[in-house]
Amino acid sequence: MVLAYILRILLTISLVSSFAVVARTQTLAERLGYPVGSKLIIVHADDLGETHAVDAAAIKALESGSVNSASLMVPCPWFPEMADYAKSHPDLDLGLHLTLTSERVYYRWPPVAPSDRVASLVDANGYFHHDWDAHQQIDAGEVETELRAQVERALRMGVRPTHLDSHQYRLIMNGRDLFDAMLRVAHHYQLPVFVTADWFVAHPYLQSSLGSGDIVLDHTVTIGPDVAAQKWADFYREALKNLKPGVTEFVIHPGYDDEEERAATRERATWGAAWRQRDYDFFTSQQFRDMLVRENIKPITWRELTELWKAHHSSAPPQ
Amino acid sequence: MVLAYILRILLTISLVSSFAVVARTQTLAERLGYPVGSKLIIVHADDLGETHAVDAAAIKALESGSVNSASLMVPCPWFPEMADYAKSHPDLDLGLHLTLTSERVYYRWPPVAPSDRVASLVDANGYFHHDWDAHQQIDAGEVETELRAQVERALRMGVRPTHLDSHQYRLIMNGRDLFDAMLRVAHHYQLPVFVTADWFVAHPYLQSSLGSGDIVLDHTVTIGPDVAAQKWADFYREALKNLKPGVTEFVIHPGYDDEEERAATRERATWGAAWRQRDYDFFTSQQFRDMLVRENIKPITWRELTELWKAHHSSAPPQ
Repeated sequence: MVLAYILRILLTISLVSSFAVVARTQTLAERLGYPVGSKLIIVHADDLGETHAVDAAAIKALESGSVNSASLMVPCPWFPEMADYAKSHPDLDLGLHLTLTSERVYYRWPPVAPSDRVASLVDANGYFHHDWDAHQQIDAGEVETELRAQVERALRMGVRPTHLDSHQYRLIMNGRDLFDAMLRVAHHYQLPVFVTADWFVAHPYLQSSLGSGDIVLDHTVTIGPDVAAQKWADFYREALKNLKPGVTEFVIHPGYDDEEERAATRERATWGAAWRQRDYDFFTSQQFRDMLVRENIKPITWRELTELWKAHHSSAPPQ
Repeated sequence: MVLAYILRILLTISLVSSFAVVARTQTLAERLGYPVGSKLIIVHADDLGETHAVDAAAIKALESGSVNSASLMVPCPWFPEMADYAKSHPDLDLGLHLTLTSERVYYRWPPVAPSDRVASLVDANGYFHHDWDAHQQIDAGEVETELRAQVERALRMGVRPTHLDSHQYRLIMNGRDLFDAMLRVAHHYQLPVFVTADWFVAHPYLQSSLGSGDIVLDHTVTIGPDVAAQKWADFYREALKNLKPGVTEFVIHPGYDDEEERAATRERATWGAAWRQRDYDFFTSQQFRDMLVRENIKPITWRELTELWKAHHSSAPPQ
């Protein structure tokens, strides 16, 4: 009797567990209608609106078709140029690159919200902080105020964003409170946020804050300061050759290595003018296009992901 | 008896009048220690901080020595570049170009003060208005708040301005209330403002608001949209040949006709990239230097005027 009871419990556990396995195997790629094992890629340009050199390079890369997604920095001086472009190219996949820092030295921008309402986000001169040090007290309520102001400015200026992501991953890597502020804003405006499962180990709160209807990409690839300039194409070639099945976002930073960009980024080489030119060069090259074909990698955009997100959230009216 | 009385009155009037004439003939040039009839010129570059193309051209023109004065736009994205330069070149003649508009379309900036405290100065997107139309209600109290915020940011960032002037002459041409707001800020920070007697006929409130200790330049020369591009040098040559005695400020707009400046100014040619390159080319040319010598024109700066201003106001402690 006891044995039969134990056996029944074990069987139940086994069934539940099997079901869980079945549920897990319904990957994001499958939910998008692609066969198991598909390698899907979003080639995403960051930082549009930051400088004209970034805007011009990103527009050219988007129009060449090899970069197929991007996001805009609303507080930045050149945002109006990108808003105008977005308005006249409504089919492009353009999101908002939510921005809480002004990381350069000779070229800076303030928040969109009135600076006295987001006091923890600004320095003594009224700009976003250059960086957040360990003792910086960033107020999550003020973060939410600023994020809403950024989305509202974008909407008012005619941008219809497809997704939200976070400049310098500030909203991803700085604790649950800031991530939840971004999620609330995303849900309010019915937009998916860029999160990948790659980040769950380091930042477990991401997974626990996300709801079942939220989109989670499988992987992300982005180049770092550890890669030497002459190894740039090698890095990307290796990443494409070793691409795992699922949806991967390549986070790239195209820009032109011209007078403006060199001056704007001159205090350090990381994500500087030459870096951005190298990204532009690789992702607009025939070599990159050929690799996508050879490796059977299919480009997708946030538009497809947004449809999925909306299908899940369709019952909820816009707030 | 009556005749003698009338004669005495006439004599008194004549003496007072003669004294007034004597007082008037103490020109600004003479107060600066120059002989009667001297032709003194300030060659003043406007709009520093607006773009890198303007900063780079202005710095080169200042270092060439033929442009000897300039003013900085504190709300603009590239102001930090100029603040850094000003800090490391404390002997240069750099003022603040008080700014209340964001006149371009694809590249814009907001006020320095929290936008909700200067509501009449900002558009729905939080930028300074592109332009002021006839029905715009600009609040003079908010203008003063913003001007103080601009001076405070400049001081905090290490700039020690020599003078104040007004971007697009907004604070000169829009009535007594705005001019008085600028004057109050100028007196508070013990700085002279750029005003010339040329403007008194069109804007009589300028003269009546100014106190006896305020500096008034005699003339100003600035090129306008009525001059064809190929007549640029002719216009300046004529202006130098016909320069009147006294202190004249040449208000010029040097900049480079490069990608950034072309993009930032592309909606109209006036004060655009090519315009600024023409100004740069003329005022850094040997032709211009030679004319100064030939026409016996002596360059002076706001530093000399500031000394005069301070000598008059030295009894007043800084507020």
